[in-house]
Amino acid sequence: MIQALIFDVFGTCVDWRSSVARDVATALPDVDALEFADAWRAEYDPAMARIRDGGRGYVPLDDLHLENLHNVARRLGVTAPDHLNAAWERLDPWPDVVPGLTRMRKSHIIAPCSNGSIALMTRLARYGGLPWDCILGAEIAQDYKPKARVYLAAAAALRLDPGDVMMVAAHNGDLHAARAAGLKTAFVPRPAEYGPAQTTDLAPEAEWDIIAPDFNGLAGVLA
Amino acid sequence: MIQALIFDVFGTCVDWRSSVARDVATALPDVDALEFADAWRAEYDPAMARIRDGGRGYVPLDDLHLENLHNVARRLGVTAPDHLNAAWERLDPWPDVVPGLTRMRKSHIIAPCSNGSIALMTRLARYGGLPWDCILGAEIAQDYKPKARVYLAAAAALRLDPGDVMMVAAHNGDLHAARAAGLKTAFVPRPAEYGPAQTTDLAPEAEWDIIAPDFNGLAGVLA
Repeated sequence: MIQALIFDVFGTCVDWRSSVARDVATALPDVDALEFADAWRAEYDPAMARIRDGGRGYVPLDDLHLENLHNVARRLGVTAPDHLNAAWERLDPWPDVVPGLTRMRKSHIIAPCSNGSIALMTRLARYGGLPWDCILGAEIAQDYKPKARVYLAAAAALRLDPGDVMMVAAHNGDLHAARAAGLKTAFVPRPAEYGPAQTTDLAPEAEWDIIAPDFNGLAGVLA
Repeated sequence: MIQALIFDVFGTCVDWRSSVARDVATALPDVDALEFADAWRAEYDPAMARIRDGGRGYVPLDDLHLENLHNVARRLGVTAPDHLNAAWERLDPWPDVVPGLTRMRKSHIIAPCSNGSIALMTRLARYGGLPWDCILGAEIAQDYKPKARVYLAAAAALRLDPGDVMMVAAHNGDLHAARAAGLKTAFVPRPAEYGPAQTTDLAPEAEWDIIAPDFNGLAGVLA
């Protein structure tokens, strides 16, 4: 009996690519905004990897985003203003997300289990109207997905067994890690997350507990 | 410029005494339910004091409540069922709280800064319709108010300076500690929290930044 649903956010709930590119286009009119957004996002996993591996203590994603912003700008020969980092607090939800979450919340506790910080997830929820019950994820675990402790810390914070919590993501890797930690899993594809040329995560790669076309479909299965 | 409002919950937002007594009356029909609620609450501060003083590691309030439930029941010569502990997840908000918070949320981040756990605050918010943006408080600080680190951890989790955060409470002691940690302060009296014979916290004991009769009044000052 699933008591709580926890969600990946970047890509699964919100369209980071077009939203970040929109702010880049305003702040840096001379660069290719989508290329900049992709390059910025490409720095995300390597930056977290050092922390996951123990080579660096926990640093909130806001700080990693700021470091990565300046690294990418330097590489492209431009100077980025610090305030562009707040682009990550203004990401548009996919159209099915707010109605789907609103419906799921009637029967289940819902919370992000993202690598974003409490501050970032709070401001993003206010921007997009995401009706979370609480904010879980990397910061309460002081580590980054896909480390098992992040999923386990989310279940523990709700005082639930991992098997009573379902992880929802558009990324097979996130679900493999959640399942290995004992959680239930739901896959919702986001085939345009990386733009029209996306080649990864177009389909489920395992028999996830639920596979749904979008959040409205997921809400229908869970009702 | 206040960016976020953080709230004491037990007493300030919710009427724990009548709500707990209601569940006690159902589970333990042979005891005086209000007396039991008062005795249970009286164990609260001593239980946290050991943790604040370092004599015991951080234990979520849910566990302290359960230990205290059985201590009080034993003293009164009855046996309490474990499930009565969930009474703390079903506390009625004072009538001005939901409309006041809903109004304050339009202009400010709002979050509990309670000694209750993330799980307890999440379930209490769902029960009473408290529209929090996120859950802050003892669990993210791994310590209990009035220790300074609990107020400072709340501001840090929002990536705000303490002076840009306002603590709202019906208890002068909570506000003294918040002010000492550098936060702004607002006092809202709850003269019936401890019943008709209440003698403490009937009035502000210092020049708090805001003194308001209830949450609607506070929302009006902050608008």
